[in-house]
Amino acid sequence: MAPHFPVNKFSTNGQEPSDYDRQAVMITNQIGMEEKSQQLDEDFAVVEPKDEECAVERLHHLTKIVTEFQDHLRERASNQLGHPGNHNCSHYLALSTLLQYNINNVGDPFKESNYGLHTKKFEVSVLDWFAQLWGIDKDEYWGYVTNGGTEGNLHGILMGRELLPNGILYTSQESHYSMLKIARMYRMDCETIASLATGEMDCNDLQDKLLMNKDRPAIINVTIGTTFKGAVDDLDLVVQTLIDSGFSDNQFYIHCDAAMSGLVVPFLKQVTKFTFKKPIGSVSISGHKFLGCPMPCGVLLTRRKYIKLISRNIEYIATCDSTIAGSRNGHSPIFMWYVLNIKGWKGLKQDVEKCLKNARYLRHHLKKAGISSMLNETSVTVVFERPQDSEFIRHWQLQCLGSMAHVVVMPHVTIEMLDRFLYDLIRKRNIWHGTLHPPCLAEDMGICNCACPVHARKHMN
Amino acid sequence: MAPHFPVNKFSTNGQEPSDYDRQAVMITNQIGMEEKSQQLDEDFAVVEPKDEECAVERLHHLTKIVTEFQDHLRERASNQLGHPGNHNCSHYLALSTLLQYNINNVGDPFKESNYGLHTKKFEVSVLDWFAQLWGIDKDEYWGYVTNGGTEGNLHGILMGRELLPNGILYTSQESHYSMLKIARMYRMDCETIASLATGEMDCNDLQDKLLMNKDRPAIINVTIGTTFKGAVDDLDLVVQTLIDSGFSDNQFYIHCDAAMSGLVVPFLKQVTKFTFKKPIGSVSISGHKFLGCPMPCGVLLTRRKYIKLISRNIEYIATCDSTIAGSRNGHSPIFMWYVLNIKGWKGLKQDVEKCLKNARYLRHHLKKAGISSMLNETSVTVVFERPQDSEFIRHWQLQCLGSMAHVVVMPHVTIEMLDRFLYDLIRKRNIWHGTLHPPCLAEDMGICNCACPVHARKHMN
Repeated sequence: MAPHFPVNKFSTNGQEPSDYDRQAVMITNQIGMEEKSQQLDEDFAVVEPKDEECAVERLHHLTKIVTEFQDHLRERASNQLGHPGNHNCSHYLALSTLLQYNINNVGDPFKESNYGLHTKKFEVSVLDWFAQLWGIDKDEYWGYVTNGGTEGNLHGILMGRELLPNGILYTSQESHYSMLKIARMYRMDCETIASLATGEMDCNDLQDKLLMNKDRPAIINVTIGTTFKGAVDDLDLVVQTLIDSGFSDNQFYIHCDAAMSGLVVPFLKQVTKFTFKKPIGSVSISGHKFLGCPMPCGVLLTRRKYIKLISRNIEYIATCDSTIAGSRNGHSPIFMWYVLNIKGWKGLKQDVEKCLKNARYLRHHLKKAGISSMLNETSVTVVFERPQDSEFIRHWQLQCLGSMAHVVVMPHVTIEMLDRFLYDLIRKRNIWHGTLHPPCLAEDMGICNCACPVHARKHMN
Repeated sequence: MAPHFPVNKFSTNGQEPSDYDRQAVMITNQIGMEEKSQQLDEDFAVVEPKDEECAVERLHHLTKIVTEFQDHLRERASNQLGHPGNHNCSHYLALSTLLQYNINNVGDPFKESNYGLHTKKFEVSVLDWFAQLWGIDKDEYWGYVTNGGTEGNLHGILMGRELLPNGILYTSQESHYSMLKIARMYRMDCETIASLATGEMDCNDLQDKLLMNKDRPAIINVTIGTTFKGAVDDLDLVVQTLIDSGFSDNQFYIHCDAAMSGLVVPFLKQVTKFTFKKPIGSVSISGHKFLGCPMPCGVLLTRRKYIKLISRNIEYIATCDSTIAGSRNGHSPIFMWYVLNIKGWKGLKQDVEKCLKNARYLRHHLKKAGISSMLNETSVTVVFERPQDSEFIRHWQLQCLGSMAHVVVMPHVTIEMLDRFLYDLIRKRNIWHGTLHPPCLAEDMGICNCACPVHARKHMN
């Protein structure tokens, strides 16, 4: 029987261990863990305690599994480049004793229920902070801490649909996959809008599709940080397109899916301002991405005047059912409250600046190495030619789409980590391609970003 | 300015401190905290760190707020009787170091994504355990760990609607409030079915409504533990009613909302068996109720053959989007895995037996004191005459509906706690009612449970 290595033990695909696994085992060993073999899937099963089993032994066994699992998580975090999550999370340990409380922010954050174990005060403080960031007064907004970007999108689009029941959902082909799911769940007609090479919504295509459906209201999803290219849709141009197409204020609703860059763009200059001073209806921002909360969470903000549309008083819990979830995680608001208080606006701005700088560093070195790559100005996502080795992709946990892959430069990504990555990529790429030319990626990321022989020569001319 | 007491400091309703608050302050003081006055809402605001502020001082300040908040949570947990949450949660502290990892079980639990920090192995083990409990083979079921009962209901009803697009949703008037919200979200026609005094679905009314809509498929929500009376709908009778009304197997879908009692009824004898051996399509069970996980979570189980209906491959995350949430909490599966491994089937059965015994103890003493009350045979929820004092209700965190209130006897509820509650209730009730007769609750809970002078006399005859 082949030995099982810790790294793969926690995966579900049952693959054989690779060079990276062996390397990970070495790292794990360096941090004080003995090499284990023949650790089987059964380790993870829920097993009925035996009658004669001592409770202390049982706890010891479970603790051992969890400790080994943490070594695995540490290794995975140290090589995590492809997903938009911040892994500088150790400060959340200060809140760990809260895990002994069953906290539930059931219902509306602004209306206390009769359940005493909630963190609604912390939640409202977090919402106030985001409301200020997004330019809406305390008494004008409503919002809540969600279980992540999708829940925020579910809430925002529902609001749009309830305001404009006959509305069509317009969302770009590069928007988050939850959008098409939501259209289906909500039984809404949906028009997918083409995108530019940058990943931004193509407002010419938007206009064509708006004009084809002039008799029905428009519910527009504007993406602030697309999942793959980190592109930011041009809100001002979207609004102008609506006006040019003859849609008045009460004929459209704009939801901003800012899951990815909702905590990046407010700190940038020279960019379309995203604010409730403009005609947007709602925004969804993730808390586990840039803030690095240990579990998916986020914030949904909307205009207070809209919420009565979907809110319903529930007598027995003595609060209003105004959220998607009902019972709600009471720990995530306090995670967000804690990190916002530690960093503040200034600290987050510094994080954003560091990430932008590091993303530009990576882009520069990819370009220097003759690798097709792109980086939008307001983005921390570096897109490049897809590596040809699935183990390489798995090791660095890259996201891939067609011929492209990307690295999302989050606050935990250091220059040292990027150097390790670049070294590994450039060395292995020579093996993958050999003497063959690298592929043309002009269509995927624009001619100016393509490093294939034809286009590379053009840039030099 | 009136002094603010710690208990109220964490509430959002800005009420004046009551006798209970003062009592709570005394308890809090006993556990080592000085009495604080003039602690203002500003304590909880997110405040920008000052330039000259020392980071250590900042952390000290935040830690102090969180520590005080924990004292408050402890006090609230010790008087929590009305909500279906277990507050024996201290064993979860063993998992607290996991909070330094940003864990995300994005997408399908059975398909590994390219994101390495997940707990899908633990999740699948938990699902396997629940599948066995609910009588469905490993290769026949699909499921996932949700953010709570509502998400499970959202998934189950969506499955039903996608299988039977023209289906009408039938749900009893005592079912969870999420059902009407879901019908609205999904644009489904919905028939509300009357309930019996026990809280069970009235299958005569179900039949009448099925017969009125014979030309359209039926999507039935069967509640296993209604929110207010803990009633369990009679699955066998529901199925028989469907057959009697001329609905064949492919014309109906049954979702079981077992959020409340999904971990109670499988341990009882002499009760309708709930199992996938019967024609049910899905079940949703909460993890924060009986298991006492520190944050809302749960399990959704369905038949594997159905899931392809709503699953969609998402290339860039290298997994399938088959859940409502997308990005998913990776901590809750490990909480559930841990507690199931510690307790096992036997430990949970003991918990259930203890809760049933304690619920009967409470019912017995309420009845003895001449207070209208009811307790369904398969339930841990004791319903009784609504107390006349909002402070009393707030202190014990009771849920109220019309003239009724309830106590849910969860595993943290001890005889000592019930004795304290009974003493407080009986003493105060004399003050509330004075020489007046207690109200008639025959309509709310049935003549046999009513202790008003007219009906009490009848029982004696």
